[in-house]
Amino acid sequence: MVQIHWPPTYDRSYVPEPGSEYWNSQAETMAPAEREALILGNLGHQVRYAYENSAFYREFWGDAGTDPSNIKSLDDFRQLPILTKDHLRQEQEAHPPFGRYLCVPRERVMRIHGTSGTTGNPTLFGIGEDDWDRIAEAHARILWSAGLRPDDMVIVTSVFSAYIGSWGALLGAERLGAMCFPFGAGAPEQTERAVDWIGYVKPTALYGTPSYALYLAATARRMGIDPRKDFNIRLMFFSGEPGASIPSTRKEIEETFGCHVVDMGSMAEMTPWMTNSGCRHLKRGMHLWNDIVYAEMLDPDTKAPTPPGTEGVPVYTHLERTSQPMIRYWSGDLARWDIEPCACGRTYPTLPDGLSGRVDDMIIVRGQSIFPSKIEDILRSMPEFGGEFRLIVDREQGRMDSLTVQVEVVSEVYPGKSNGSEDSTLAERRFADELRRAIGVGLKVELKPEGEFERTQFKARRIIDKRSY
Amino acid sequence: MVQIHWPPTYDRSYVPEPGSEYWNSQAETMAPAEREALILGNLGHQVRYAYENSAFYREFWGDAGTDPSNIKSLDDFRQLPILTKDHLRQEQEAHPPFGRYLCVPRERVMRIHGTSGTTGNPTLFGIGEDDWDRIAEAHARILWSAGLRPDDMVIVTSVFSAYIGSWGALLGAERLGAMCFPFGAGAPEQTERAVDWIGYVKPTALYGTPSYALYLAATARRMGIDPRKDFNIRLMFFSGEPGASIPSTRKEIEETFGCHVVDMGSMAEMTPWMTNSGCRHLKRGMHLWNDIVYAEMLDPDTKAPTPPGTEGVPVYTHLERTSQPMIRYWSGDLARWDIEPCACGRTYPTLPDGLSGRVDDMIIVRGQSIFPSKIEDILRSMPEFGGEFRLIVDREQGRMDSLTVQVEVVSEVYPGKSNGSEDSTLAERRFADELRRAIGVGLKVELKPEGEFERTQFKARRIIDKRSY
Repeated sequence: MVQIHWPPTYDRSYVPEPGSEYWNSQAETMAPAEREALILGNLGHQVRYAYENSAFYREFWGDAGTDPSNIKSLDDFRQLPILTKDHLRQEQEAHPPFGRYLCVPRERVMRIHGTSGTTGNPTLFGIGEDDWDRIAEAHARILWSAGLRPDDMVIVTSVFSAYIGSWGALLGAERLGAMCFPFGAGAPEQTERAVDWIGYVKPTALYGTPSYALYLAATARRMGIDPRKDFNIRLMFFSGEPGASIPSTRKEIEETFGCHVVDMGSMAEMTPWMTNSGCRHLKRGMHLWNDIVYAEMLDPDTKAPTPPGTEGVPVYTHLERTSQPMIRYWSGDLARWDIEPCACGRTYPTLPDGLSGRVDDMIIVRGQSIFPSKIEDILRSMPEFGGEFRLIVDREQGRMDSLTVQVEVVSEVYPGKSNGSEDSTLAERRFADELRRAIGVGLKVELKPEGEFERTQFKARRIIDKRSY
Repeated sequence: MVQIHWPPTYDRSYVPEPGSEYWNSQAETMAPAEREALILGNLGHQVRYAYENSAFYREFWGDAGTDPSNIKSLDDFRQLPILTKDHLRQEQEAHPPFGRYLCVPRERVMRIHGTSGTTGNPTLFGIGEDDWDRIAEAHARILWSAGLRPDDMVIVTSVFSAYIGSWGALLGAERLGAMCFPFGAGAPEQTERAVDWIGYVKPTALYGTPSYALYLAATARRMGIDPRKDFNIRLMFFSGEPGASIPSTRKEIEETFGCHVVDMGSMAEMTPWMTNSGCRHLKRGMHLWNDIVYAEMLDPDTKAPTPPGTEGVPVYTHLERTSQPMIRYWSGDLARWDIEPCACGRTYPTLPDGLSGRVDDMIIVRGQSIFPSKIEDILRSMPEFGGEFRLIVDREQGRMDSLTVQVEVVSEVYPGKSNGSEDSTLAERRFADELRRAIGVGLKVELKPEGEFERTQFKARRIIDKRSY
């Protein structure tokens, strides 16, 4: 077994030479079998640590068919039960506010973040200072692979609040030594001001969501500013939405800004959430940096490991977390994974399509699983598309489900324009044909004028499900 | 002369014993004459540093009747010209984006913050990593005096954006070792969520603006939550508005939450902006922590030093800043200052009323200077007051200025309620009489129902000046 100092500590002042491809070439390019041994060693430490420091995990693993204090193989590890968001919620309700999976004394919690659901109490993250340093290190290392360097200036456009995404981006960019402009978002008219600032200080990198990048570009254009010529952004890294791995959305963003796009993000609970991340070479998709957070890819039904080249649900395990370690945490995402060489030389597995679907959030219409990301991909490939859409699912009493796609179209084909009605009938038919062919379900298309739907600064919410169950 | 290592570096891991009154008892309690020698030494270093590293300062001081590389007395120092926001704006426009008063190489800027004005380009702050550490140290030291301790949990409710206030509060609280919850504000419905979170995680301290605290309390009550009983906030520290030193506003906040209120804040440009700050003993007002940022108190017209007990304009000078030092920076605020012993034992001068007015923003009506803070104080002392107000200043062609105070009143006296018209006439007269007596200018009062005016989450903008000049 590999000898490991656990949990690892990192030299806060280390930064590679700017010309280096890797932050940690040994860790990033080692042979997969060697890495597996390393991962297994850390899994053992992490599981034992949680077992010894958390009454929650001791109870949760009470019936596991393995000894959590002595994990010797991945098979041992897979005997541990899968942890879900519901488990965390219940535990925090029973033992507020952090739940007994907080494995450090409360006074060692340095930061509080969390997620507010629409129902029930928020889910709380308590993060210790040591973990905060390790998150910084992991994010710096991964941002390095995305091409970020100390002479870059990064604007962070996501809101700074309980939501941890923007904080993780800032932390990593700071640790890497880049100049950081934590702009945030969310206040009225803030996007106009973001356009002003970006035109003025000329950041070279931007973090946010794909939706926000497109919203920012539309706002800039409305103000007479060309996001490609007047800005200077060469790198955009995103999380929170699948868009950065949806080819058409990605292409639109790359062409709009003249930049390279990197898709990132596992889950807030899994912070360092950048451990799913593309690099400066990958055209789309994300590597699984599984020496920092270990990602199993499991069959959504049987929970058995899926082979390379197939789809699975990522189930994540922290490997160097002391405050609130997540062990076998169910993501509910769906992704194809594979082992393919990348020009970057890293030897990690890859999700070539990113997180392309949700096991939970996908909509099932007449027995077919439908992913909004697939629909978005098709719409964005069509020149008539006006930028936003909504999916309306309905079911009349005793009838079949109906799916209506409300599509914004450019003004030239919107009904009512001169010569528009003929064009619009054609456009409507073309949308319906393309979508039906791709998703295999009958549907209705309704054309809407550009600007009909809110451009959200956060995750676009595009599904309106009116069915009663 | 006192021997000084300049710029100072601080041990990042130092925290006093929780029982200690002081973070740095020597610095905070030394005899004023001794401190003056220390300040003078640092002034010399700071001015020489700026002179040697900034073409802007060399030009700006070209005609000064003193040698900036050899400041030997406060008299020498006072020969340097006063710096204003306009100087900074012009310099940044001529030498974008940071201006030549950035005294470190651009690549050593770690953070960008700034202020967006309503006209022209934003003003940009570039802050180096060493300065960031010193800001953290200064804010931790001052928050310690406010009574914050490592076992506190601090919620920061101001927006995290280009605005530096919230970042400075977070930085100091983190350095002190408190548990920090950077919640931010600004998104729709975020205050409702703040109420949820505060009720759930029970922070013991809150940073924000006085307006926001009152808005938070009103939101909580509307949700059926008592901010005193259901929250657990024992300390609120504020900046950005004078409210925390306005007796009635302060009293209202302290009674609403059952907490101690500390007023803080110089200017964003002067960060560490906490160097004007109350302590856990001071009933209102702020000490001038002038061994960190030196504050002269000057006559607004003659620019001569004003004696203790009188009003003056604070003019600030950084004493340990390398990235963008401000030297003799004009605040435009107006404050009474004095040398009075405080129960805390610190030997700093004090602004007993806080920053009670603005030289620039005060309104002049028929030759009288009128400060909204004064009007706020009077209104909040009256039981009929409904929580918000606006000042409308107008001037008809060739006529005298008119001042109208639009006052929200509680529903019992608002016209239209049963028996209301009589009460409301009485209330209107009482408001007008009290205000006239206090500010010495004739005015009209208009009663408005509670909730008429927006409860801003940021600085309340209460003056509507319709006069053309």
